[in-house]
Amino acid sequence: MLYVIIAAMKVSELGEFGLIELLAKIVNKTNNPQDVSWQRLLIGIGDDAAAWKSEKTIQIATTDSLVQDTHFDLSITTWEELGWKAIAVNLSDIAAMGGIPGYALISLALPAELEVDCIESLYKGMTQIANQFGVAIVGGNVASASKTMISVTVLGALESTSALTRSAAVHGDQIAVTGYPGLSAAGLRMLKQHLKFDVETTQLLREAHLTPMPRIDEGQILLHRGVKAAIDISDGLLADMTHICKASKVSARIKKDAVPIHPILESNFKSDCQQLALSGGEDYELLFTCAPEDVALLVAAVASVGGAAKPIGVITAGSDVEYVDEDGVVLSEPLSWQHFPECGTAGGAK
Amino acid sequence: MLYVIIAAMKVSELGEFGLIELLAKIVNKTNNPQDVSWQRLLIGIGDDAAAWKSEKTIQIATTDSLVQDTHFDLSITTWEELGWKAIAVNLSDIAAMGGIPGYALISLALPAELEVDCIESLYKGMTQIANQFGVAIVGGNVASASKTMISVTVLGALESTSALTRSAAVHGDQIAVTGYPGLSAAGLRMLKQHLKFDVETTQLLREAHLTPMPRIDEGQILLHRGVKAAIDISDGLLADMTHICKASKVSARIKKDAVPIHPILESNFKSDCQQLALSGGEDYELLFTCAPEDVALLVAAVASVGGAAKPIGVITAGSDVEYVDEDGVVLSEPLSWQHFPECGTAGGAK
Repeated sequence: MLYVIIAAMKVSELGEFGLIELLAKIVNKTNNPQDVSWQRLLIGIGDDAAAWKSEKTIQIATTDSLVQDTHFDLSITTWEELGWKAIAVNLSDIAAMGGIPGYALISLALPAELEVDCIESLYKGMTQIANQFGVAIVGGNVASASKTMISVTVLGALESTSALTRSAAVHGDQIAVTGYPGLSAAGLRMLKQHLKFDVETTQLLREAHLTPMPRIDEGQILLHRGVKAAIDISDGLLADMTHICKASKVSARIKKDAVPIHPILESNFKSDCQQLALSGGEDYELLFTCAPEDVALLVAAVASVGGAAKPIGVITAGSDVEYVDEDGVVLSEPLSWQHFPECGTAGGAK
Repeated sequence: MLYVIIAAMKVSELGEFGLIELLAKIVNKTNNPQDVSWQRLLIGIGDDAAAWKSEKTIQIATTDSLVQDTHFDLSITTWEELGWKAIAVNLSDIAAMGGIPGYALISLALPAELEVDCIESLYKGMTQIANQFGVAIVGGNVASASKTMISVTVLGALESTSALTRSAAVHGDQIAVTGYPGLSAAGLRMLKQHLKFDVETTQLLREAHLTPMPRIDEGQILLHRGVKAAIDISDGLLADMTHICKASKVSARIKKDAVPIHPILESNFKSDCQQLALSGGEDYELLFTCAPEDVALLVAAVASVGGAAKPIGVITAGSDVEYVDEDGVVLSEPLSWQHFPECGTAGGAK
């Protein structure tokens, strides 16, 4: 009977994370551990990027796609911004491993009726961010499709013998986050609902959602100063915290008052700025854990490259993520984003 | 006025190859040659795969997508066959450089209503071919979309200081091809038109189209025996010959009687077996050029790993591909496949 239920299960019922787990199981069950590729592998399916030993360094690779009407809406983004973002989301995965990006390959599916200058603008945005981070766009392919889809793969290297991973958090670690999560989701809401703000606010929110800045420098600092566990915030702070907890087999306690809320978020989205910061998604900030005695130095080091980092909680024993007020009382957990959300849950900001 | 015309041009008017040329120009015009990534780059946009110097070896990478209703039709392929092919087309690009594949990343866009067992079958096909060629599937991502799209990136290495490229053919070279081009296009026709053949023929044609075998061993043999120029046949023999000629700034003369026609093609598709062999596409055989004195040894070496290779013409001066009869009379050129074919031309077998 169980077989019948599974056989008829739809992707939407299994959910994004359930599907990824299933695919990892299939691959790991059928692989041949004698193959050189598997022997050299350090990190496979389930982290921000894959990593394997090369001669002297560790190679890393990640892939991510933007699908029209799922990830982007051409009524609110320019093609140039879209090009930036398609590369940025991959660089963010490299940052979350502490890696240095090197090469990018682009796979485009495009409607035949699309105007060529849209694609020129797309590539203008791609080359801008690629050049800013020393990434060479070296290949790709184009195919026709009814809607636009942009798949990017970025390859990089680690100047270290280990990577930042989701699975390295330990009981007693402090939890910290870079930047101000929630700005991206607020930007999306502004664009979708045609909210009007002053010029500075409008630009900040637009950029947060459409041209996010991958935290490559911050990832380097974390890796070289002994941080072991990190993830980039794509699904939302709490959801990505859950990914770390699940992979590390620990629990986390996030303190409500410690979560950094940008003044613009506080003044313009007063009633739900907390919700946006915790569950907005697509922030591409780094969420990491470290030994308590290292927090101050890490915060200072991130500030030295013009960034910001702030402790927001602690890693505890157990397996759940708790969100607590100043008295330690557990608050209800806001929802977060995933593709194909399981029945009974709702999608988040995207 | 010219600007106005270009600005309004559609992707379908520029064509697949025009679009790739445009993208290469944008990337090459805007890059920063001081970046380490660019300094190490050996082969960028425009060949079967990209290549760059690592510490001791040369790294290679390629990406290719299969889009529902553009590249595959779920009424004629199983999900397992589709998984095989999505990896195979990328391995074929690695083969065309003389490379050894190592790692694969998979980006899936899927309808939410799709049944999970379809994806299990897809990954079964993927892991079968991956294991056969020692490839580790190490990452990827899933997203929701209205139609299925599978983007695969394969990373590999070259055990050599140079790669097989499209741009290395020289005047006087012999042209040769592995296997029997045209079987894939014949298979597609059989499946689309519900043609009935005996069991053996049906299986051969189905496999040729749906589960092609990348010529990794053959690519290795060519590279290590001094061949410089090669391409895999994805667009059709003549179209891919044109790619070599354009990149190498030479011409080619293909001899009609020399092109290998599989007996099954000859007996079942008598009236247009030549057309299928020359322009069918999706064969994933290797087309290569070599010094005339090396042909016999190369043919024997390919036969030693169970493959087949046959000389079919010569590289000449000029820039066109000629297709000639036994008296050297130029015959009319059959059409070949490209995405977004330019106005006035038609798509081929796909």
